[in-house]
Amino acid sequence: MERAQSTLRALGERVVQSLSSGKFPVFEIPDRKTSNIHYDPSTRRYALGPSTVKRDSKNTKHVRSMAQLLWAASFARQLLNTSRTSSLRDLYYSSEAFGIEFADQSESDRIVTDLECLTGLPREAFGVFPEEHSSIYGNVLMRYNVPGYEGREIDLTVSPDGLPIGPALVSAEPVRSSASMVLAVESGGMFSRLIETKAWQRFNAVLVQLGGQPPRGTRRILRRLRYELDLPVYIFTDGDPWGMHIARVIISGSANAAHIKDLNVPDATWIGVTPSDIEEYSLPNEGLNNADLKRLDDLTRDVRYDSAEWRKHIDDFRRFRKKAEQQAFSRYGMDFVVENYLRDKLA
Amino acid sequence: MERAQSTLRALGERVVQSLSSGKFPVFEIPDRKTSNIHYDPSTRRYALGPSTVKRDSKNTKHVRSMAQLLWAASFARQLLNTSRTSSLRDLYYSSEAFGIEFADQSESDRIVTDLECLTGLPREAFGVFPEEHSSIYGNVLMRYNVPGYEGREIDLTVSPDGLPIGPALVSAEPVRSSASMVLAVESGGMFSRLIETKAWQRFNAVLVQLGGQPPRGTRRILRRLRYELDLPVYIFTDGDPWGMHIARVIISGSANAAHIKDLNVPDATWIGVTPSDIEEYSLPNEGLNNADLKRLDDLTRDVRYDSAEWRKHIDDFRRFRKKAEQQAFSRYGMDFVVENYLRDKLA
Repeated sequence: MERAQSTLRALGERVVQSLSSGKFPVFEIPDRKTSNIHYDPSTRRYALGPSTVKRDSKNTKHVRSMAQLLWAASFARQLLNTSRTSSLRDLYYSSEAFGIEFADQSESDRIVTDLECLTGLPREAFGVFPEEHSSIYGNVLMRYNVPGYEGREIDLTVSPDGLPIGPALVSAEPVRSSASMVLAVESGGMFSRLIETKAWQRFNAVLVQLGGQPPRGTRRILRRLRYELDLPVYIFTDGDPWGMHIARVIISGSANAAHIKDLNVPDATWIGVTPSDIEEYSLPNEGLNNADLKRLDDLTRDVRYDSAEWRKHIDDFRRFRKKAEQQAFSRYGMDFVVENYLRDKLA
Repeated sequence: MERAQSTLRALGERVVQSLSSGKFPVFEIPDRKTSNIHYDPSTRRYALGPSTVKRDSKNTKHVRSMAQLLWAASFARQLLNTSRTSSLRDLYYSSEAFGIEFADQSESDRIVTDLECLTGLPREAFGVFPEEHSSIYGNVLMRYNVPGYEGREIDLTVSPDGLPIGPALVSAEPVRSSASMVLAVESGGMFSRLIETKAWQRFNAVLVQLGGQPPRGTRRILRRLRYELDLPVYIFTDGDPWGMHIARVIISGSANAAHIKDLNVPDATWIGVTPSDIEEYSLPNEGLNNADLKRLDDLTRDVRYDSAEWRKHIDDFRRFRKKAEQQAFSRYGMDFVVENYLRDKLA
């Protein structure tokens, strides 16, 4: 919070200084073009390279986006000053009060990303969040920082339906945990199943429901559980190229967030459903469609898949031409996924 | 729970009796065709009429769906015996273990609805839920019934991100509340805003995030808060035909659930965004598209809109040809929606 405040202040001071010494303000922003995104072996994640782009306010083509960026910075500062958060959608609508024109929300989202690049801070540090979220359940104690809840601790088993990973939980501190692992699952159905069957006790696991490709706040919590509470992270998704890629993004980051540090869990493990699991367990399955096959082609060229283990998964998908959901284990009864599949995979 | 158990037992006994006396079992199921759905003024909801359909196991065309129905009943009984819940998706996959063929999940969903009609009980009573859910936040104490949490009470302000309305909360008992109303809102962004700005304290409201057209569990909780804790229910949605219809379904029920009692809140109030609010507050808006206009045509013929007040909303939408999101109030600053709009509407 204080770092975000001082970063925004410094940004504003630089602009004022330029103006008062009669110069047009210039911003230098890390370049997000694909050609500037590379895999950084030291942090084991997708990251931005050294190239930057200039926004110069004496260039009339840049004036619009610079004004938008400065407004976004002032909106962020207002959020911090009042201890508020905002959804990306609210930020978009709020701009109208100031006569800032955004063509649509994708333009304002892009400007928020520019602000992240310029300041080196994620939008969550300014209190800006997407609407969707995932859930969490397990033996973890977290301490809230949000107004009205400062210092209050919450046990993440308090609600048998799980707790949403919303702005308050994303900014909370992990205090301690008696669990011995994190098990992140793709679907809400599997999450409920693992709570209800007490699989979380059996595996002594903190459960995280990803809800598809998880929002960043969820990836940040996974990372904090891994490195602050020393819990290894296992990822259990549907057995298709999209589920596999959910795991890869948790492990190595995404192109969209290549400019954000501390989001990935390099040593997280994808336990499945792997393409060979579909064969081995004779799971109910569907054939891969054209979109799935095209996705595999894309992933083949993706540096994050540049290892024998991951190449094999891609090759297996191509060979078997099948996909299966994680819920498909139910064909062997409600308990099979816990009593057999997860027991073996987590052993 | 006990009622569900005994209903299923009675159903099974009837089938066994038929078979042991050498007769083909026959089911008589309330007819769900549109022609048998009417508006019931006494309960003020969409309900099924008296017409029924027969499923006769000596008719080979009926054998398949009767076998599916009996399997669904036995699956439900197993859930009840083991105090488990299942998603509709899991139920679909579980059928494979028993050689029950469903063409796809929509067929198994339909059979679950048949079971509801046959037994007069909602699937939630058998522990079968959809995956999606909404959230709740406010001064309400609920008492859980689910295994491991029996009798445990939870204050619905425990998490500043709200609590998911999952299977455990849907089956929990409302104990007491110091709130004076329920304010149900369509979007997650608005829900977070109202928590964070302490609008829930200002209006002394329990907040419910509907997340679009809400799942039945959410409608059931709204009803229980209304009639067991005596809290009036206000609904705040986007200003478009779909948002308006979210309110109408909460108030009068839906065709899909016309066979289920005790889901609607006949005296709930839609506070907006009404089409005239869009004009009055000069909200950022979009023109109605063809799908919106077609929707208005459908609603014109819908008996639930057969009153001067609701006809006027439809006419206003047609006249202004505009729609606006509830977040659109942000154009007047982050606090306008609370300090002005909701203050006036809830006064």
